[in-house]
Parts: sequence; structure tokens; C-alpha cells
Amino acid sequence: MSLFLRAAHGHNTPRAPIWIMRQAGRYLSEYRALKEKYTFWELCRTPELAAEITLQPVRRFGVDAAILFQDIMTPLPPMGLEIDFAPGPVFKAPVRSAEAVADLRVPEQDEIAPFVAEAIRLIRAESPVPLIGFGGAPLTLATYIVQGGGSKDYDEFRQFLRYAPGTAHALLEKLTELSIRYLKMQLGAGAQAVQVFDSWAGLHDARLYREFAKPYNTRIFEALAEFGAPRMYIAVEALHLYGEIKDLPCEVVSVDWRAPLSQVRPLLPGKTLQGNLDPAVLLAPEAVVRAEAERVLREGLGGPHIFNLGHGIMRQTDPGRVAQLISVVQAFDRTGVA
Amino acid sequence: MSLFLRAAHGHNTPRAPIWIMRQAGRYLSEYRALKEKYTFWELCRTPELAAEITLQPVRRFGVDAAILFQDIMTPLPPMGLEIDFAPGPVFKAPVRSAEAVADLRVPEQDEIAPFVAEAIRLIRAESPVPLIGFGGAPLTLATYIVQGGGSKDYDEFRQFLRYAPGTAHALLEKLTELSIRYLKMQLGAGAQAVQVFDSWAGLHDARLYREFAKPYNTRIFEALAEFGAPRMYIAVEALHLYGEIKDLPCEVVSVDWRAPLSQVRPLLPGKTLQGNLDPAVLLAPEAVVRAEAERVLREGLGGPHIFNLGHGIMRQTDPGRVAQLISVVQAFDRTGVA
Repeated sequence: MSLFLRAAHGHNTPRAPIWIMRQAGRYLSEYRALKEKYTFWELCRTPELAAEITLQPVRRFGVDAAILFQDIMTPLPPMGLEIDFAPGPVFKAPVRSAEAVADLRVPEQDEIAPFVAEAIRLIRAESPVPLIGFGGAPLTLATYIVQGGGSKDYDEFRQFLRYAPGTAHALLEKLTELSIRYLKMQLGAGAQAVQVFDSWAGLHDARLYREFAKPYNTRIFEALAEFGAPRMYIAVEALHLYGEIKDLPCEVVSVDWRAPLSQVRPLLPGKTLQGNLDPAVLLAPEAVVRAEAERVLREGLGGPHIFNLGHGIMRQTDPGRVAQLISVVQAFDRTGVA
Repeated sequence: MSLFLRAAHGHNTPRAPIWIMRQAGRYLSEYRALKEKYTFWELCRTPELAAEITLQPVRRFGVDAAILFQDIMTPLPPMGLEIDFAPGPVFKAPVRSAEAVADLRVPEQDEIAPFVAEAIRLIRAESPVPLIGFGGAPLTLATYIVQGGGSKDYDEFRQFLRYAPGTAHALLEKLTELSIRYLKMQLGAGAQAVQVFDSWAGLHDARLYREFAKPYNTRIFEALAEFGAPRMYIAVEALHLYGEIKDLPCEVVSVDWRAPLSQVRPLLPGKTLQGNLDPAVLLAPEAVVRAEAERVLREGLGGPHIFNLGHGIMRQTDPGRVAQLISVVQAFDRTGVA
């Protein structure tokens, strides 16, 4: 079994595997060359292009896992939602009424995104490392669907949760069923792990998380158990939520850069921790990259650790720093000190 | 002594005093009426207008404290920085080099913002409740000065801290001296408490906070001790920083809405806690406002508590909800349950 999958399954591996959130993307010239020729949706929906982009960082850096190139919005258009990227997602018609929620359909597993299944098969045929599939968590998808796009404070969505909790639950039900089908499809097509991105969960207090996030995330992870593939979860700015997140039936929790892994470890017993270098460190001089990466590696001792950033890589990152980071992580021996 | 000042000085008052962050502002029609006639800088720099705006929520709602109407950018132009509002702050020339930092001057106390001193005198002559002055924390001011304005991830500033820590410290030194002079001026003119806003401290881990924030915040608070006025501090998304914030020589810490006051209280021993209703609750139905406010009031028992939101009020808030909130808080008796 690969180093990544062993660590994801809870083994204290002799070195930490490493991959990088948004490792396939705008900081790479080979990605930008494709982005000049195609729209974002074309890149997502053309299996050969999505596979090529997924594999770019694997070839360039020798990361220990590939992550599917897609967007968390990928499964939403077949529900009846029209979305553009400008560059963030913009919904033609935000969903804010019971009627609008009732109108959303939950497509069958094979209808959602056949191009993703095909991309996964192409990637698996070529990739020397495990492939991670992913999707958005229901609460985070609902955040965008109700707000209508990105926002500074997601005021419309936060108001919606308080004015129309019943409608919110109806929407979350549909998104949960969609997510289960979408992620099952990915695992069925060959993804060897899945990560659920709950990017906006940290906006809410633990009580709202218990009501609007935890039960749905739990159902998704339970539905995926049969595949035996590691289930991974990320929420950012979530230190106040770890008392709930610890109960999710998943093997791996991604941690943002704000708190050291050694402080988070006891809050998430039994989980493999993933993270948590500040993405801004990759904008720093080489000596800082090394020192900070080694600090994170030391803080990650004492339990299974998959090295990653605490959030997506920044687009102005020099790929040379990424190569340096990977060599530092891959040279760090955890056996003498663990 | 007023209820607000007693609570701020650490007394477990029979009811919680209440004021609201950004209580003077865009959600009030009487503010918008002035904003149509004057630019934002004109409102700040005309003592009669700044005083009038400060007093608007005091008259309308009977809050237990007034907070000066200004912006954290107010003291920066005399340093040589040109700033517009569009509507967020935009710096004509971001400061990113040692030379640019060296060029910044630290104006004398009386030069910084004489219009603020005059506004304070006007407010004190009319206000039935104590007046809170305020300023930005050095790290947060530096965030804007280096980035050049608001940003999604403040990448330029976070890179700057790593590439040029010496220059960052030189900038923070100047901002600390400026802040001390500016806040001393406010207290000298009649402000009865001061709040230091460290809006972006939560972006950083505790190690960066210890290096770039804590020593400067400490110096400011120490320099203000002689006035005997309560010193208040706010950082948002800062649960991971309370282990450092607890050491600041201030009487009051504002807490955002993410974690309950009862959970934060033991992390900040000896401090009066201020907060922490989610501002989105004021966009909810009346029954939700009451239930959530009473929950926060109960969680605030067990120590001194000043009721507030966990962050600034949202501009689309119905002032009727604010009036309701204030009546709920002012009716809540802490003596039977504390």
C-alpha cells in the first residue's frame, strides 16, 4: 500500500506523505497555458484535459498523491443550477425559497458528471500515486447556492438559516443525497480516497454546526464506508468546531495553519492529521520554507500525519518553492523521533 | 460610576451593559441621510458631524456606551499616507520597502487628528453614557498599509512579514508610537475607555502573533495605564490566540461569535468578556433574536460581561431588531443566576 494510503488509514509512517491543496492550478505555467485556450468549465468537463491537469503536479514534483482537477460546483448544474466563473462562482438564480429548493432535482449517480468518471479512469491509467476524489460538504454548497456566489460575510445565507431552517434542511437533504451519489461514483470509477471540503463551516458556531452540518457530513461518510477508502474532511477556521468534527466517521482531518498540529492532535483522537503549513510560507525565502516545514513536521509527530498546506496554495507561488518544500518533507525521517 | 464602566473595570454587574460594534453607521437612516451629503472623510473630520453620528444610536436606542465615530485609518494620513474609501480603504502607495517605512513620519500628539479631540469634547457635553475611543492595533494597521487596502487573504502582507521582518518591525514601531499618541489624545480629550481593534490578528498563528503583535499591543496598553480608563481589545477568529491575548495588560477582551463565552472565560482569566452575539442573528425573526441573546447572556454569567455583537453590525440590519435586542439585554437580571 502506498505511503499516502497507509498514513490516511492511520499508520504512523516513517516519513510524512505530502500533497498540496490546489496543487493543480494557476501557479503552474503548464496549467495557465491550458487556461488560455479553454474556459474553466471546458477544463473540468473534458476528461483528457481534467486528467492532464490533475497529473501536471504529479509529474513536475513527485507529490505522494494526486487530487482530481474539478471544482466543488461540478455536480450542481445537473440539479438545475446555472453557474459561471468570474473567476469565482456566480449563480444565475440564487436559491432562497421552499419552491426553489423543491425545483432542484437530484440526478442519478451516472448522470451527475460522467466526464469525471472518465477523467478518473484516465488518471488511474497513468498515475504512479493514489488519486484523491473530492466534493463540497452540503453546508458549504448550500452557502454558495443561497448566497449566489462568493461573499465577504455570507449574510444572505446566514439570514436564510435563521429565517427558513426547514427550507435549509430540505436543501441540505438534497445536497447530501447528491454528494453521496457523486462521491460513490468517484470511488466506483477508481478514486482511492475522497476529501469533503467544508470551506465555510467555520463561519458558524458549534450549535449551528451540530444542526446544519454534522448530521449531513456523517451520512455522507457512513454511505462511503463500504468502499474502504480513506475519507478526509476539511473545515477552515474551525478550532471551535473540533469538539464536533472529532465525531465524524472519517479517517483524516485537514487542519488550517492557525493552531499547531500538536495542539490539535488531542482534540481529534484517532484521526490522521493533514496539514498545516501556512500557504504564505511558500511566498517566503527558502530558509523560512525549510524552518517552517520542519516545525510543522515536528509538531506532526506523535500520530499519523499527511503533510499539506493549511489552505489552498496561493496563485503567485513560485513552483520552485513547492519543489523545495517537497524535498524537505520527503527527507524528514519520522522514525527516530516519533 | 456607570454600568458600562463598572463592568469594564471587572465588576459582575446586576445586568450586562450593552453597546454594539459599528452602532453608528449605515444601517441607520439618520446616518445614511448625512452620508448622502458628505464624503466619509468629511464625516470623520468635521467635529460636529462626527459627534452627531456618534450620538445617533445613543439617542435612538439608549445603549449603555457611545463609541466615537471614526475609522481606524483616521490617524494615518498625517504619517504621509494617502487613503481613499471606495468604500473600503485604498492606499495610493502601499508601503513595502525599508525606504518607504523610513519616510513615514510619526506626528506629534496634537497634530494627529485635532478634529477627533474636538468631536470628543462635543460628545462628552451631550452624551448621557460613557464614550469609548478607539484605534487600530499596529499589526492590523500594517496589514492595510502594506497590502494597500482590503484583500481576501492579505497575501502581500503575509509575504512581507516573512521577507522583511526587520522592515515590518520598523513599521510596527512607528505605528505603536502613533497609536500611543493618538489614544492618549483621545483619553486626554475625554474618552472614558478605549478599544484597540486588531481585526486581522487572527490570520496568523500564535508564533507570528508573539513576534509581530503582542509586544506592540502590550506597549500601547501599558502607556495608557496612567489614565485609569478601561482598555479593551478585539481580535476576530482568535480562539487560537487567546493563550497570548490573556497576557495583554487590558481589562476587556471582545470575543467573536464562534465560541461560547463560557468556553472562552477560563482562557482569559481576570478579563471582562465583551460579546458575542452573531451579527447574523439580527437578521433573524424576533423570536430567534430573543432566544439567542438570552443564550449569550446565560453563557456570560460567571464573570463580568459587556453585551455586544461578535463583530460589526451588518448594514442591512433592521434597527427595530437592535431596539428589541437592547430591551432583552437590559431586562435580563444577572443577580439571581450569577
